[in-house]
Amino acid sequence: MKRQGGQTWKFESRPRIIGSATVVGPDEGEGPLSTDFDYIYDNIEINEKTWEKAERRLIEHSTELALINANLNKEEVQFYISGDLMNQIISSSFSASKLGIPYLGVFGACSTSMESLALAALIVDSEAGDYVLAGTTSHNCTAEKQFRYPNEYGSQKPPTAQYTVTGSGAAVVGHAKSGTVVDCATIGRVMDMGIKDPFNMGGAMAPAAADTLLSHFRDTGRDPGYYDLIVTGDLASVGLPIAKELLKKDGYDMIQTEFNDCGLLIYDINKQKKVIAGGSGCGCSAVVTYGHLLKRIEKGELKKVLVVATGALLSPLSTQQGESIPCVAHAVAFEAGGQV
Amino acid sequence: MKRQGGQTWKFESRPRIIGSATVVGPDEGEGPLSTDFDYIYDNIEINEKTWEKAERRLIEHSTELALINANLNKEEVQFYISGDLMNQIISSSFSASKLGIPYLGVFGACSTSMESLALAALIVDSEAGDYVLAGTTSHNCTAEKQFRYPNEYGSQKPPTAQYTVTGSGAAVVGHAKSGTVVDCATIGRVMDMGIKDPFNMGGAMAPAAADTLLSHFRDTGRDPGYYDLIVTGDLASVGLPIAKELLKKDGYDMIQTEFNDCGLLIYDINKQKKVIAGGSGCGCSAVVTYGHLLKRIEKGELKKVLVVATGALLSPLSTQQGESIPCVAHAVAFEAGGQV
Repeated sequence: MKRQGGQTWKFESRPRIIGSATVVGPDEGEGPLSTDFDYIYDNIEINEKTWEKAERRLIEHSTELALINANLNKEEVQFYISGDLMNQIISSSFSASKLGIPYLGVFGACSTSMESLALAALIVDSEAGDYVLAGTTSHNCTAEKQFRYPNEYGSQKPPTAQYTVTGSGAAVVGHAKSGTVVDCATIGRVMDMGIKDPFNMGGAMAPAAADTLLSHFRDTGRDPGYYDLIVTGDLASVGLPIAKELLKKDGYDMIQTEFNDCGLLIYDINKQKKVIAGGSGCGCSAVVTYGHLLKRIEKGELKKVLVVATGALLSPLSTQQGESIPCVAHAVAFEAGGQV
Repeated sequence: MKRQGGQTWKFESRPRIIGSATVVGPDEGEGPLSTDFDYIYDNIEINEKTWEKAERRLIEHSTELALINANLNKEEVQFYISGDLMNQIISSSFSASKLGIPYLGVFGACSTSMESLALAALIVDSEAGDYVLAGTTSHNCTAEKQFRYPNEYGSQKPPTAQYTVTGSGAAVVGHAKSGTVVDCATIGRVMDMGIKDPFNMGGAMAPAAADTLLSHFRDTGRDPGYYDLIVTGDLASVGLPIAKELLKKDGYDMIQTEFNDCGLLIYDINKQKKVIAGGSGCGCSAVVTYGHLLKRIEKGELKKVLVVATGALLSPLSTQQGESIPCVAHAVAFEAGGQV
């Protein structure tokens, strides 16, 4: 372990993702990444009786598959790090109860995917654990009903609104001879630009994404061109151009690299009209990263990828009390590892 | 860093608590530990207009004082790890926005105090950060209204009920020549024994406390007599005897050491009748540890102390949906460090 400047961890022992899995709902299965997911449920109920049980089922399923793909029993994994959007992260905690692996609950809203992965890599890199499982989950109907309105209410949404992904992604980090390398991670600061509208998450989160990217470039001495692809998650069609503009003001022209967003990759926003500005939710960056991006790296299409997962740290109560939306973004850099 | 058996981290570089602070409300100020706290508010409103703002003010205050006591500016601290009981840990996230220190949000309910401290010590021990701030907060009125009934409703409570502590504790971990040493940490598994009553947290959490203690003894090869004091937080008067009984069944008679509970230490449950079975909440183990216990170690009254912070990972929604209460406990061992 070596700290690479201010807020970036360089994982010198080169921990790898030795197994990962993604499970999604029907909307995600109809999107452009459908062939990248391990399992697609054909019903939004995920065969459960409540939305909350559905969300939990997703992470129970993805963690189970990730362990199978890593060729490990749960007894061989020392720590499980997980979080989600539900109050008191119940989806994660109930899944931890079922898994029985020592558990660290985390919360970073939609940045939870990279927060949990960064901590998993830190634990493995510092030899505090041989194998660590990281995961997160979200369900469209639990999140919409909790943070905005139940879908059944049928309220109209503004054009800045995003669509919470129904899906879960999980990954096992360890030392191994093959698998994608977790190269380094940049932990973000919380930014609050005063935006109060829970239907404009992309706009609220863009400054946090830009701030973490700037910190990452400063800490590592890299510039955008170092990466084949930089993806944020989830700024969608409203937030991504704002982040681009903010980075340009600070001297980083993102035309040096492919710069995209998990919320734009997961759906075809021109065809899947109901997603409006694009995807969001803990599951979005998790399934895009562990499903789509890792597969592209493993196929040799990409060598160096930076995922900057963004989170809007609002609660229904803070919105009701007229508070603004504090946001954070955590970045993890992935590298094609090859066989050692 | 060396993993000491299954789920225990041994911090070989001997990171220390180089500054800590506690602030509490009036009920805690009337309790037996009143002289141990840095600041006692004389009003339950904490000079704020909402209970949520009050809870946030507590952690803004404790983190500010912890930095002063550590003789550090916030710019010198690389990471801030915090969590609380509010939905989406808003008290912590808003305080992180004000502090501007790169932020890792965590959630372990009332075990958050030791979860955040264990991660802070891991980061310092693995040289991923020089100074890390860990903190947590709770307020009686925010927690009661969210998890049970608003106090203003005036409902009667059963004799197993606990009283959420109004208070916040924070600590800065780093390498230094003096200060209490953070020796090791045991990360707990989630246990669910089927208890569904949010007015019986102590009973629900006792098995998690016992499980983590057993894991700690197994991983470290220590027995209860190794410590001058073992405290759980917060089993209170109902849960502590259950934990004792469970440990006895597994061959550990806790009469070898002083075995107590943060929820029993913070109030005089015979005089302060409204606390019923004792204290609870994220702030309880935090203010007892960072206020009372560290002072006793620094005075030389205690040399080796183990704090086993317990958390009930329920949400109002999981209770309403008839789910049981998954529980977890994380243990951190403290050692008198002396001057090096």
